[in-house]
Amino acid sequence: MKEDDVINLIRDLIPSVAQDVKLSIGDDGSVVEIDQEMELVTVLDTITVGTHYLPSASSNSIGHRIFAVNLSDIAAMGAKPKWAHLSLSLPKLDKLWIEGFIAGFSPLLSEHDLNLIGGDTIRGPEMISLSIQGVVKKDRYVTRVNANDGDLIYVTGHLGSAAFGLHLLKSGKDEPKQFIHDFNFPTPRVNEGIFLSDFASSMIDVSDGFEVDLLKLTKGSNLGFEVNIDQLPIKKEMLDCIGFDQSISMALIGGDDYELCFTIPSEMRNEFERKWHDRFKTKISMVGMIIESSNNYKYNDQNYMVENKNFEHF
Amino acid sequence: MKEDDVINLIRDLIPSVAQDVKLSIGDDGSVVEIDQEMELVTVLDTITVGTHYLPSASSNSIGHRIFAVNLSDIAAMGAKPKWAHLSLSLPKLDKLWIEGFIAGFSPLLSEHDLNLIGGDTIRGPEMISLSIQGVVKKDRYVTRVNANDGDLIYVTGHLGSAAFGLHLLKSGKDEPKQFIHDFNFPTPRVNEGIFLSDFASSMIDVSDGFEVDLLKLTKGSNLGFEVNIDQLPIKKEMLDCIGFDQSISMALIGGDDYELCFTIPSEMRNEFERKWHDRFKTKISMVGMIIESSNNYKYNDQNYMVENKNFEHF
Repeated sequence: MKEDDVINLIRDLIPSVAQDVKLSIGDDGSVVEIDQEMELVTVLDTITVGTHYLPSASSNSIGHRIFAVNLSDIAAMGAKPKWAHLSLSLPKLDKLWIEGFIAGFSPLLSEHDLNLIGGDTIRGPEMISLSIQGVVKKDRYVTRVNANDGDLIYVTGHLGSAAFGLHLLKSGKDEPKQFIHDFNFPTPRVNEGIFLSDFASSMIDVSDGFEVDLLKLTKGSNLGFEVNIDQLPIKKEMLDCIGFDQSISMALIGGDDYELCFTIPSEMRNEFERKWHDRFKTKISMVGMIIESSNNYKYNDQNYMVENKNFEHF
Repeated sequence: MKEDDVINLIRDLIPSVAQDVKLSIGDDGSVVEIDQEMELVTVLDTITVGTHYLPSASSNSIGHRIFAVNLSDIAAMGAKPKWAHLSLSLPKLDKLWIEGFIAGFSPLLSEHDLNLIGGDTIRGPEMISLSIQGVVKKDRYVTRVNANDGDLIYVTGHLGSAAFGLHLLKSGKDEPKQFIHDFNFPTPRVNEGIFLSDFASSMIDVSDGFEVDLLKLTKGSNLGFEVNIDQLPIKKEMLDCIGFDQSISMALIGGDDYELCFTIPSEMRNEFERKWHDRFKTKISMVGMIIESSNNYKYNDQNYMVENKNFEHF
């Protein structure tokens, strides 16, 4: 079985959900009605050493990571984060480690007005779960399943940088530092996600890799995509280091970028882009379009075959 | 460091919490305001093999346990459970194991109208986290910190049965079966908890052991307790098997019973007990009283020294 099979099995075997549940298992978060005007969005994500970060990772970056990945899920729903619950399992409780861990996530609490209000600590294998609850105005949450034929596909920031950083770490290198930082300290696009709830027809965060995550969105919407390779946002320093083909592979297949991938109805393009740039310095790139069927890559208007490079990634 | 030190460190180092947070880190659950009439109660608990259950445990009992322990925390807050998010980490994904796991918790979903609406599955060490959200009428949640001098101390069900069951399992025995069942399939007192929100001045669930958990409640309330050993609810079959002293130790120090321990103002005793017995068949025992200071055990009105028996427990 794969992870998705487990989720499908659970969905098949458990009783159907109640009327106050607006969105259940299968998206970045769940949504329930809490009053006439607001809905509650909840995400829960777990990370463990060896699967989501390297054994050499500092507790500072682990503390940042567990909050960043959950905030990224909240962002992908278009919700405002409010409250967090942390479950920390460690084989031994070392004060310096814990202090580094707390220092790793504290800035994210302050920056996003997020309150850590509960959880537990146990002795066990190194593993950290976090649940974040957020709120969104009634019916304004954004899912993976409402993209429409002709919608434009956008992505925030750069792609492949975290995968390149992980590759450097695994190769025992510590330069260029910006990519190692991109892997260790991903930036959740929280305010951007809230803003996008007024524009995006669908949204997902890029955690498993741009291609895989975009496929979840197009499959969820029963549609396909056409993506222009030459419009993928890739840092110049990465192209300089590893060349074009390897960079494209990392951008498409590498994970851990925690950027937002979203779709905008084409008639909203001008208004959306103007308001975005009025509000944010965060880069956005229009990389393609939702189409009726099939998934294609284009390069200079020619079909482009993506090679499945065997670089390491989590 | 101990687990409690970690929680205190987190509490000391993170920014103070927002006004909509009614109850933060340190109780069975957190409480936040969601509208004029209702509050949201959230619990998050994690279990792992070797710390919370034996390597020989069936996935059926593990599935039951993770939901039961979290429902028990919700019960101890006096809240009605509503929505659950599950994080499942397993070294390999085996269909039979997963089906047994789902079959283990499904009856608890149906019984308590609880909806499992999100979470994730990862490959990693065997560990399961669950977060349950519940609701409670404004200001009606029950904490550990509001017991008053003279309040009566009650406990539901029996004490020590789960510890005896675990002892049997660790000794390779499979009789008497009722105690093994008590350990593997604890009953969360959900409806009782909701009912108690109208009566109890303070409440905690008995997970770590009656003595330890009652101490959390009395320390939280800056008070002490006097408990009558002869009023502790202990199953006769346990007394028959292991004798008086060992049974008392298991009742006081053994964990995993997931009964509710709560305090009732003495003037409400008659009304409370009458309404309880009208509503529930669940046994309750009045085992002592909150007093101003010190923690005492009495047996036939004499002081009783509790021996710290070295029986195994988690």
